[in-house]
Amino acid sequence: MSSTTHMRREILEISAAVETLLTQGQAAMTAAAAALAERDPTFIISVARGSSDHAATYFKYASELVAGIPVASVGPSIASIYGKTLKLQGSACVAISQSGKSPDIVRMAEMAGREGALTFAVTNHPESDLAGASSHTLNLHAGAELSVAATKTFVTSIVSALWLLAEWRKDADLLAAIRQLPGALEKAALLDWGGLRDQVASRQSLYCLGRGPTLAISNEAALKFKETCQLHAESYSSAEVLHGPVSIVDRGFPVLALGVADRAEQALAEVADEIATKGAVVFATSDKVARAARLPVIRTAHPLTDPVSLIVSFYAMVEQVAVLRGVNPDEPRHLKKVTETV
Amino acid sequence: MSSTTHMRREILEISAAVETLLTQGQAAMTAAAAALAERDPTFIISVARGSSDHAATYFKYASELVAGIPVASVGPSIASIYGKTLKLQGSACVAISQSGKSPDIVRMAEMAGREGALTFAVTNHPESDLAGASSHTLNLHAGAELSVAATKTFVTSIVSALWLLAEWRKDADLLAAIRQLPGALEKAALLDWGGLRDQVASRQSLYCLGRGPTLAISNEAALKFKETCQLHAESYSSAEVLHGPVSIVDRGFPVLALGVADRAEQALAEVADEIATKGAVVFATSDKVARAARLPVIRTAHPLTDPVSLIVSFYAMVEQVAVLRGVNPDEPRHLKKVTETV
Repeated sequence: MSSTTHMRREILEISAAVETLLTQGQAAMTAAAAALAERDPTFIISVARGSSDHAATYFKYASELVAGIPVASVGPSIASIYGKTLKLQGSACVAISQSGKSPDIVRMAEMAGREGALTFAVTNHPESDLAGASSHTLNLHAGAELSVAATKTFVTSIVSALWLLAEWRKDADLLAAIRQLPGALEKAALLDWGGLRDQVASRQSLYCLGRGPTLAISNEAALKFKETCQLHAESYSSAEVLHGPVSIVDRGFPVLALGVADRAEQALAEVADEIATKGAVVFATSDKVARAARLPVIRTAHPLTDPVSLIVSFYAMVEQVAVLRGVNPDEPRHLKKVTETV
Repeated sequence: MSSTTHMRREILEISAAVETLLTQGQAAMTAAAAALAERDPTFIISVARGSSDHAATYFKYASELVAGIPVASVGPSIASIYGKTLKLQGSACVAISQSGKSPDIVRMAEMAGREGALTFAVTNHPESDLAGASSHTLNLHAGAELSVAATKTFVTSIVSALWLLAEWRKDADLLAAIRQLPGALEKAALLDWGGLRDQVASRQSLYCLGRGPTLAISNEAALKFKETCQLHAESYSSAEVLHGPVSIVDRGFPVLALGVADRAEQALAEVADEIATKGAVVFATSDKVARAARLPVIRTAHPLTDPVSLIVSFYAMVEQVAVLRGVNPDEPRHLKKVTETV
């Protein structure tokens, strides 16, 4: 049964989609990165919603860690609802939207361009209004995505944004790791996270945790649990969860701690173990945990590409949870594929 | 019984605390605002965690709407865990922490100052490490706060940050509205949100919604539901909630939609009514809703101070929910007053 969902098929297509992106997207990427290097932005703003906003959060951490350039996530309402302008001379704007259609995102990108930002559209629809409103378009080349729950377009959005950063900064290690991603992601989609799947399938609430770039992946995981499984999962920084949110943790409360082999791993593992002492059933993608259960992972060649592998393994698991719970992940309750907001 | 909690007493002290802040804080505020005006920042970064980070989100929207200056919320891990520096020449940094003690916040403020940002500490402890690491300290003058759940310090943090913005921009309307806040907040603490209280008391999950500045208030409301009531409340922008999160809404699912009389109110009210058609029991602080139930509100003299009044009425209600659920809101499960993270 689970082999028949669009979502499952599209998860298995992620590796090939990234390969296509890296091949067909090279020319546009080279031009976009050269323009960004020439701009040498003082700061960057990101504009996105939903899963695309999680990709923007990933780009934010990567930009701050690799380039030292702060990224401000700007609510599209600033332009669309409030009709305000921002002072954006010397900046860049990265807007991410698989459809490129939502009017609030388009309006924000238009305002950013008018006010002096160099604008980039990351979208699966290079003919969209968002692409038309932007100086540079990075086509995701992800092909058709039939499941309402975005998987291929999320991963290709992250890879596009990370690739832009790597080309801009001429970061050879990161570029090499990005080029090796398709092989790693093919294996990541086949990992068995059954321990976590079976633990959450009968629950109502859980937490997903990350720190640094894995926080973006944690945000995406929590949204997918809600969207496709009707499970109330919420995402927190492992540094934030002890400031109040931990109070709802009772015996058996599931927690997914998403760590990679970077400088945040130790702190994340310590929080994962501490929450386990409060009765939570904690799963972690880290071998630095003592109490929490360890999930298998496929490592990539760089700490900044490791989270991409994690989300692919997560997707394969969450689709199984949806099916176990009797939910069709291709058509979640109350949702349609393109949400347009103003 | 409920009259005996520290939390309840401190909610009733909010109005006086704001009055004290506005009186005793004037000299430091004048100096800080003059320095910020002279800096004329290209962009601003904020550094905070927990409730203080919600105050920072409020400041972000206010700065973008009033001054047109983008605000980037920077994860303290960039400095503390990853040991990276950001390019911050020409910027300002606003760090908010009631205790001023958490090492990661202090380290981030130190890095910001070294890298060229003009640094501001918003804290209830002007002798703290954070204050010592900052160019300007804005003392909250909130007095002792004994409840683990912050109320007085959250409201005075917001008022401090908003006041800094109003003095910096010499916004006479906003300054006048801030000066009138104590009277409004005294009344706001006495409003009856019993309909919402009774609806959520027996539930496990709910959503809080906001848009623009009320999103910050919604974030704070959701955290307080978790912290003091062990209820899994999650906050969303009313523009985001239809991108996936709405999927967990079933019959009777409570939703609190926090609107004020600004340009976002109509869009927020439409989402509130739409979620009600999906079976949710929706309460809204807006008279533009048709299906959702209306909560009483005390209006202030400016749309940017109205959300402050809302959170005070919310606090009075959430303390009652905690007591109804048999939780002591002064000492939430698993928590202590000062959380120090690195």
